[in-house]
Amino acid sequence: MKIAVDAMGGDFAPRNTVQGAVEACREFQLPVILVGREQEIHRELDRLNVGGLPIEVVHAEEVVGMDEPAVTAIRKKKKSSIRIGARLVKDGDAQGFVSAGNTGAVMATSKIVMKSLEGVQRPALATVVPTMTGASILLDVGANVDCRAKHLMQFAVMGSFYAEAILGRKNPKIGLLSIGEEETKGNEQTRQVFDILRQSSINFVGNVEGRDVFNGSVDVIVCDGFVGNITLKVSESLAETMEHLIRSEIKKSILARIGYLFMRPAFRKFKKRVDYSEYGGAPLLGISGVTIICHGRSSAKAIKNAVRVAGDFCAKDVNGQISRGLAELVRQEESVSIR
Amino acid sequence: MKIAVDAMGGDFAPRNTVQGAVEACREFQLPVILVGREQEIHRELDRLNVGGLPIEVVHAEEVVGMDEPAVTAIRKKKKSSIRIGARLVKDGDAQGFVSAGNTGAVMATSKIVMKSLEGVQRPALATVVPTMTGASILLDVGANVDCRAKHLMQFAVMGSFYAEAILGRKNPKIGLLSIGEEETKGNEQTRQVFDILRQSSINFVGNVEGRDVFNGSVDVIVCDGFVGNITLKVSESLAETMEHLIRSEIKKSILARIGYLFMRPAFRKFKKRVDYSEYGGAPLLGISGVTIICHGRSSAKAIKNAVRVAGDFCAKDVNGQISRGLAELVRQEESVSIR
Repeated sequence: MKIAVDAMGGDFAPRNTVQGAVEACREFQLPVILVGREQEIHRELDRLNVGGLPIEVVHAEEVVGMDEPAVTAIRKKKKSSIRIGARLVKDGDAQGFVSAGNTGAVMATSKIVMKSLEGVQRPALATVVPTMTGASILLDVGANVDCRAKHLMQFAVMGSFYAEAILGRKNPKIGLLSIGEEETKGNEQTRQVFDILRQSSINFVGNVEGRDVFNGSVDVIVCDGFVGNITLKVSESLAETMEHLIRSEIKKSILARIGYLFMRPAFRKFKKRVDYSEYGGAPLLGISGVTIICHGRSSAKAIKNAVRVAGDFCAKDVNGQISRGLAELVRQEESVSIR
Repeated sequence: MKIAVDAMGGDFAPRNTVQGAVEACREFQLPVILVGREQEIHRELDRLNVGGLPIEVVHAEEVVGMDEPAVTAIRKKKKSSIRIGARLVKDGDAQGFVSAGNTGAVMATSKIVMKSLEGVQRPALATVVPTMTGASILLDVGANVDCRAKHLMQFAVMGSFYAEAILGRKNPKIGLLSIGEEETKGNEQTRQVFDILRQSSINFVGNVEGRDVFNGSVDVIVCDGFVGNITLKVSESLAETMEHLIRSEIKKSILARIGYLFMRPAFRKFKKRVDYSEYGGAPLLGISGVTIICHGRSSAKAIKNAVRVAGDFCAKDVNGQISRGLAELVRQEESVSIR
């Protein structure tokens, strides 16, 4: 198994990306292929002690900018590190692709190059969120803004198998993100999805509310990509704001500063627990291949963990499970003739 | 001016509601009318020293349960404290109504009894959120789940006048909650709203993302009630989860506990800053009257501040400003013949 890493993607590329890939290679014995401008990659590798490690470099002369529209990136940059990385997976030269580059371009390129799994209408971006009791999966967090009920149904199935594989949950509890627990609550879309999910074989526990996202009451939270993306970014923003406000209060008082020194190890443990970089990126579920998308501001540790997740994803055959799960659903639908 | 307070609404009624109303009456010299079961109200008043304060009691024999469907509350409980409180405003016996009761029932009853302001198609629930730099207004947070572009346009106008009146912002900056800043980003709904807002006379600064909700980059954030409600509840949930996780880390170490003692005043100041009860409830904007809706778990302080907000709302004639603003918009639309 080999994992391709987009060496040029992200705000701190190629430094963090190369370092993270090297650390993954060393720590998890996973062979990696660094994709990007050869010279720049070798300059980074020279700084690190990589003798004997199974690291390859594949040259890609173009780089997609972080704010470039996905459409122009796809049309005009056929030699980008994103395109070539995705191609390596398609051709079987790598089994997974990790990128902290332009999210829209990575998603669109992965869909175009690797194609969707049979039966999947819309691949979805799934992320792990830390909760009161451990972690849950939230999807879709941005791959699909306008969804139909059937798409959300597929997200639920894909999320269920992902939670089983990555979080080790048996028969994961699936909740539909809405604005009230009763089935009559929500908007037109969620009411339709509720009906479909209730009749399926997955472990659907009903609607959940915004307050359930972080309390760990379910293993998988399903929503469309518009709501999911806002949920994710609101959470990041609130966590940053809280930290900023607490820091500014601490700065105002000498006693508080002393207190902070005593508390620092506890704060560090807390931060480690809620740190996205521990969870290693978000997979684009439903493509015929493995793409793990990382935050643009990814640290080397985040890249390292994303490479680990890509490896797990392959080793546990998440795609095979998703395919079989969707096929099973289709059989059920046919037998009860839901359309 | 008199403010009616639903003495029976909320998880801690009538204790917190009566106490909060009395404190508002004492602190802000605002006459209040307590609405609910007379005997229970008087029992609470007897515990408090209210001699000489301008407090009236209006009997309402029915109470709407916190989880009761709004529809049955409206049809079957014509003598509820919510119904009678709203009626007092309609009849001019009170100028505002404050309730921590069943949110759905308070919204629906207020709309039915007080009616909408002329030109308002959908009243919206607006809440104040603490930000990195102060506070912003977020609306709609739950009054309307399925909205059309025109409704969001009206939310923007109402939010603008509310921010001006309550936060004292001149020509408030309005942002549309979406998943990318460019006008082409978002879902079908936000793209339509973007076009309409850009052509209007309000100070529309464009799309904002989830990360902007708490960073104070705009004064008013507009979204539909489904997205707004999830945003609000996700935020509450994350804040609680962070507090819980920090506490559990602190408990594990004696040094951290000592540190916490030193830091407690700083934490208290932080909590005061982000405490919803300081901001005093969410007005239902766009009704021909004043209804302030409080959190079900409201403390006496939250009720007190909601009474203050109701008073401000009247004194600053927010409704008059909204009416004039909407009329102005209609004139503009006619002159450029947007439909």
